[in-house]
Amino acid sequence: MSALLTLEPLTREAFAPYGDVIEVSGEPDKLINQGMCGRFHDLAKLDFGSGQAGISLFDAQARHFPYTLDMMERHPEGSQAFIPLSGVPMIISVAKDNSGKPGLPRAFLSKPHQSINIHRNTWHGVLAPVERAGQYIVIDRIGDTPNLEEYYFQDSYIVNV
Amino acid sequence: MSALLTLEPLTREAFAPYGDVIEVSGEPDKLINQGMCGRFHDLAKLDFGSGQAGISLFDAQARHFPYTLDMMERHPEGSQAFIPLSGVPMIISVAKDNSGKPGLPRAFLSKPHQSINIHRNTWHGVLAPVERAGQYIVIDRIGDTPNLEEYYFQDSYIVNV
Repeated sequence: MSALLTLEPLTREAFAPYGDVIEVSGEPDKLINQGMCGRFHDLAKLDFGSGQAGISLFDAQARHFPYTLDMMERHPEGSQAFIPLSGVPMIISVAKDNSGKPGLPRAFLSKPHQSINIHRNTWHGVLAPVERAGQYIVIDRIGDTPNLEEYYFQDSYIVNV
Repeated sequence: MSALLTLEPLTREAFAPYGDVIEVSGEPDKLINQGMCGRFHDLAKLDFGSGQAGISLFDAQARHFPYTLDMMERHPEGSQAFIPLSGVPMIISVAKDNSGKPGLPRAFLSKPHQSINIHRNTWHGVLAPVERAGQYIVIDRIGDTPNLEEYYFQDSYIVNV
């Protein structure tokens, strides 16, 4: 039997326990380039453990509704940011830890130009572009030691609009 | 009198002396997420000196042709990556160092989904979105010590299509 997850809009406040939402909000922290550019400064809590920051590119196939969440993963050694290059929204599933496995997940739907940064060691679903394939720049930890833990649910969750 | 710079297409090879072009190219380094996602791994040479990596957002006004390049800057303490969120191409001016000031600049025009990483201490022009305003995610050095050197040309350069 599958439990249903209600999709929530992605806001900084709602997502705060799991990570950062990176978007234009309010006035810039600083005007640069002779006033031609606003800088919104240092919007994500990055942490790469014993490794270092790297920039990679994910080219991901489309996911569709109803979406089945049957697995979550976490990265004990680092945060992971996703930046949409093609304006394709993401289904973002996250959960707090419950004795070494994911607690009840929450599912968020991003807007086209919202980027996210998932905090180190936070349970999350895989990259899930909505209805279209999408390319995403990923900022995560580059290192030689293991950095992936997976948990498969006995009963999967269904995410629907 | 202003010298004219010929705009060049942005390719990995041509840009290599100044930085990295981050784009899908060939086969992914790894298939992840049960084959649903290709990972192009660790595409940029990041260096944040005595500081650390941060994610910021630049909201920049449009620049137009003919474009006047009257100043270049460099960041002695770190690399700086620009990721287009709105698919707006950039005019990317770069130069090798010539005894503490920029040598003859070269100007590149990016494609909508090309991101770049300018290497540490490399002379470059300011963020210049072409003909439309654009938002860009910026990965650069967060730190407390100075990280900006500017050079104003006596005779500016003109970049045209």
